[in-house]
Amino acid sequence: MADVLVNDEKLTRFCTEVFVNLGVSKEDAEVTADNLVQADLRAIPSHGVARLMRYVNGIKNGKILPKVKPKILKETPTTAAISGENGLGQPAGLFGMKLAIDKAKKTGVGFVTVCNSNHYGIAGYYSMMALKDDLCGISMTNSAPLGVPTFSRDMIIGTNPISVVFPTDKERPFVLDMATTVVPRGKLEVMNRLGKPLPLGWAVDEKGIPTTDTARVLDNMTKAAGGGVLPLGGAGEEFSGHKGYGMSVLVDIFSGILSGAAYGGYVSTKKDPDQKFNNVGHFFGAIKIDNFIPLDQFKATMDKMVSELKNSNKAEGEKRVYIHGEKEFEKWDGYKKSGLPLQDKVYDQLEKLSQETNIKFDIK
Amino acid sequence: MADVLVNDEKLTRFCTEVFVNLGVSKEDAEVTADNLVQADLRAIPSHGVARLMRYVNGIKNGKILPKVKPKILKETPTTAAISGENGLGQPAGLFGMKLAIDKAKKTGVGFVTVCNSNHYGIAGYYSMMALKDDLCGISMTNSAPLGVPTFSRDMIIGTNPISVVFPTDKERPFVLDMATTVVPRGKLEVMNRLGKPLPLGWAVDEKGIPTTDTARVLDNMTKAAGGGVLPLGGAGEEFSGHKGYGMSVLVDIFSGILSGAAYGGYVSTKKDPDQKFNNVGHFFGAIKIDNFIPLDQFKATMDKMVSELKNSNKAEGEKRVYIHGEKEFEKWDGYKKSGLPLQDKVYDQLEKLSQETNIKFDIK
Repeated sequence: MADVLVNDEKLTRFCTEVFVNLGVSKEDAEVTADNLVQADLRAIPSHGVARLMRYVNGIKNGKILPKVKPKILKETPTTAAISGENGLGQPAGLFGMKLAIDKAKKTGVGFVTVCNSNHYGIAGYYSMMALKDDLCGISMTNSAPLGVPTFSRDMIIGTNPISVVFPTDKERPFVLDMATTVVPRGKLEVMNRLGKPLPLGWAVDEKGIPTTDTARVLDNMTKAAGGGVLPLGGAGEEFSGHKGYGMSVLVDIFSGILSGAAYGGYVSTKKDPDQKFNNVGHFFGAIKIDNFIPLDQFKATMDKMVSELKNSNKAEGEKRVYIHGEKEFEKWDGYKKSGLPLQDKVYDQLEKLSQETNIKFDIK
Repeated sequence: MADVLVNDEKLTRFCTEVFVNLGVSKEDAEVTADNLVQADLRAIPSHGVARLMRYVNGIKNGKILPKVKPKILKETPTTAAISGENGLGQPAGLFGMKLAIDKAKKTGVGFVTVCNSNHYGIAGYYSMMALKDDLCGISMTNSAPLGVPTFSRDMIIGTNPISVVFPTDKERPFVLDMATTVVPRGKLEVMNRLGKPLPLGWAVDEKGIPTTDTARVLDNMTKAAGGGVLPLGGAGEEFSGHKGYGMSVLVDIFSGILSGAAYGGYVSTKKDPDQKFNNVGHFFGAIKIDNFIPLDQFKATMDKMVSELKNSNKAEGEKRVYIHGEKEFEKWDGYKKSGLPLQDKVYDQLEKLSQETNIKFDIK
């Protein structure tokens, strides 16, 4: 797996044109393209332009509607319920998070649900929007069911990520952005490509028993034959896998049930042939910090805490203690200077797409 | 460790009198006693009346002020910042959660921080208050630092629990109530009493290396000599211990930094001899469901999801898949019928306290 270095701005323009070419408005195409490229820049390639073809195919096969606009179903000064109208998840997410931020700036708190949506990319893209206004930002989504509840063998919970961010002063902002399963599917795929066994505790087989058999788990997942990824904390209750399971359900309630979207096994159209759309659900929130404490004091204390954590005594053999978001910010800075590495397989896919669509391929 | 069966209502009255005898108002004594006994009834004895002596000693040594009332520092229609005035955590928690609920009923959303507080018992006690009004309830607190960040060896993060609850119709409510470390200290103490080694992945030694040596970890924790409990997900990043670490910091930001309380290593008076009070912080929230979706629809879908999870196919060798809160509700029902089992050591402690205080000991 060699990497090709590309220019992130040119890549964003290319992806934007791909979406515009499929009938998406320029504005919606831009946010969707930016979301994918930002994932690559933050070194989360599982959610980067490697996913572009899935979006393209989703639009082509009618599961993602390219021309719709999000619709407000219900609104109060502090809350709103939105329908994404089965369009791309990114414009719906942008709309929802902007609304949450506007409400928080006025009333101190803003919470917005989105139903009838699709994959919205990295959760942190939306929560981080709150940082510009020095707000706490919250973003969650449910996702296609790839996880298995504690003591079950059925793949009926999502990797359901949650992201919460808080501003700082001189330190990097605190950016938590995590799937609630022990690992996302992407990590299994990487192990499979490398021909490596899974660490025991990442996934279970079709009988619900922990296994190291990478190919078997992925094959089961594709066929929905039972088994799948374990919740954070692993199998059973010995290492508190039930807590990760609870976090996954929690994110699903906020994103899926509270919004009126699909939940659990119903997210995606695979379970029920009559279900026309994926009906993914999201949840966004923003909270004004100086409703509780002066912003300066908050940010100064955040800096102090972050610094203390980072400068704590290292475990034997370890060189660094990180704070959440730090690794991704450093990668972003590095890629902005060096160029963004894309897997050659992904690069080739984009090149092929450019030939099919007659969109100029100039991303280096 | 034999158990003595007691009557929970008589036990609550006894504990109430103990607090009243120390100068606590009847109202504050009642909620504190109820909180402790409810923990026992929910089969969380680590947070039950076994802790009564710590509260008594806290009041006696001046770290918990018995006669103060919570004070509102800042308030808007959606938010409030409260000081617990270094009194008992339970009355401050009750005050904070009630305020969050009142605000949510009026504006859709209510969030309340509490600083200058003390140990508030089980987090779920407060979040569950929201169920009476069919609201989503949120409760978090920071706690004395017993956990170690990923790649560190220092005990500078709390077990920082988070509880979020949602109402259902016919099924039991969803009650997530979890420490963000893999286990609480109480579980290490149980292993120690049984003379058992720790599962590798619960805790690290003073060098930050995972260990099975129960006594050594507990001894290190008492002396703050390094090492301690691991975050949910375990050591390093292989099983995503950094996610549990992030959840712990997240709860600390909401509870400690946003409220203006102590955070991390500063929660408790052990680190700094000049710090007179523990300055624990809490965070409470309530969200009105029908601001987003009709309540009946929400509850019906919750029932459906809970039922599907519980009735999913079991892993080989397993008999039940649980939903969060279910085990505790069943224990509660059982103990209400059979009587509440207290460890004889705890029973003896209470009897001794009754002799010292001349409070009638009638709890069977």
